[in-house]
Amino acid sequence: MSAAELTRDAFLGGRLHLWQPRAGYRAGVDPVLLAAAVPARPGQSVLELGCGAGAAVLCLNARVPGLSLTGVELQPFYAELARRNAAENEAPLRVVEADLQRLPPELRAQAFDHVIANPPYYERHRSTASEDAGRDVALAGETPLVEWIATASRRLAPRGYLTLIQKADRLPELIAACTARLGSLRVRAIQPRVGRKAELVLMQARKGGRAGFVLEAPLIMHEGARHRVDGESYTPEVLNILRGGQALPWSA
Amino acid sequence: MSAAELTRDAFLGGRLHLWQPRAGYRAGVDPVLLAAAVPARPGQSVLELGCGAGAAVLCLNARVPGLSLTGVELQPFYAELARRNAAENEAPLRVVEADLQRLPPELRAQAFDHVIANPPYYERHRSTASEDAGRDVALAGETPLVEWIATASRRLAPRGYLTLIQKADRLPELIAACTARLGSLRVRAIQPRVGRKAELVLMQARKGGRAGFVLEAPLIMHEGARHRVDGESYTPEVLNILRGGQALPWSA
Repeated sequence: MSAAELTRDAFLGGRLHLWQPRAGYRAGVDPVLLAAAVPARPGQSVLELGCGAGAAVLCLNARVPGLSLTGVELQPFYAELARRNAAENEAPLRVVEADLQRLPPELRAQAFDHVIANPPYYERHRSTASEDAGRDVALAGETPLVEWIATASRRLAPRGYLTLIQKADRLPELIAACTARLGSLRVRAIQPRVGRKAELVLMQARKGGRAGFVLEAPLIMHEGARHRVDGESYTPEVLNILRGGQALPWSA
Repeated sequence: MSAAELTRDAFLGGRLHLWQPRAGYRAGVDPVLLAAAVPARPGQSVLELGCGAGAAVLCLNARVPGLSLTGVELQPFYAELARRNAAENEAPLRVVEADLQRLPPELRAQAFDHVIANPPYYERHRSTASEDAGRDVALAGETPLVEWIATASRRLAPRGYLTLIQKADRLPELIAACTARLGSLRVRAIQPRVGRKAELVLMQARKGGRAGFVLEAPLIMHEGARHRVDGESYTPEVLNILRGGQALPWSA
């Protein structure tokens, strides 16, 4: 891809600008919500699996200072974009080009306070291939969801947190994969509007956690019961995250 | 127990009256919500596992005419109460006194369009025994949750529905138990108020179902963000169920 095929987009009310491919996988709201849900404190270490152009991990960096950030990305084009985005936003992000099922030895020797991920939403065999192979891998990866969670749990330090965003209909798989490896599961539904079924879920799990499962109050994306055409209709809570750069805390 | 230890309580705005032990397990809101969530049509067959004094199955009978109703209850005292409540409300309920893990042959020969259950909320080994043994079994049964679901799935006709209400923190167990046996899982969180985590979940699963998992919009029990002391504060949707006897439909 050439530079002409990129766009430069503002996130978090202009706190962050990211180069993204015009036609490939483009970060939208989801990595911003993911970053808002990570309970990271200054000085902690964060690993993002499948970081793409770096949207989630760079949003997190914009909210929490002093993090040590690592991103793993399979596709060289996106890995290079993530490096460029980190440099332009002065973020201390190390990007490792690797398959998350075959991490290099230096990563396998490390443990992180947080692992975050926005795994592809569709299974490859269920979807039709598009003309953009990079977008295909980002949207419909080859790696089963259980492998994302297995890799994440191996890389977590004791008491470390996994934070993940995924389509709501994959929740049973997520819970099954976490139950065997992690504890203290929490799930927050993301509903498009009041009264609608969830489209996405945010999930948190803790290495060595022993607390009971918690089903949080949902995050409601849009005001009103129906779609209106007169512009943006995000709820105040969502605007605080997308434009204000605020956190999306889990319940006490 | 003697008759003096019973109370007669109104449900569904007076459409139903039930005798219940004053000091034992007493049906509250939960069996009414369970009954409202059962998508039964006139003429279908319904089996309730652990029917107690019959609250859920008799609420369902008050909403949907022409059902064929069977309740299984381990404790003779509650089984007898369910028979009495059915007779006084003119409901065609057959009550079978049995352990759901050892159903009698005549039940094992039958398949039902619907199985419903409100299994005990606490595991016996986690709870302190109370002075009322009947209440103990009702609140903290001996039968693991997975056995409730296994028994239910064996008794369901092809395409039949399981509808169940349970504490929200048991959701991972519920999903795991259903995944192996049933399909088309749906979960609806029941939140005490807007913004609070779920206390209960309603779950639906279908025998032979192949639809994707659905996380429904939550049911909010009470108005406002906090508890107010000036009387009842149920939301209109909940009042329609508890007093109006209406259904709680699953999304299309």
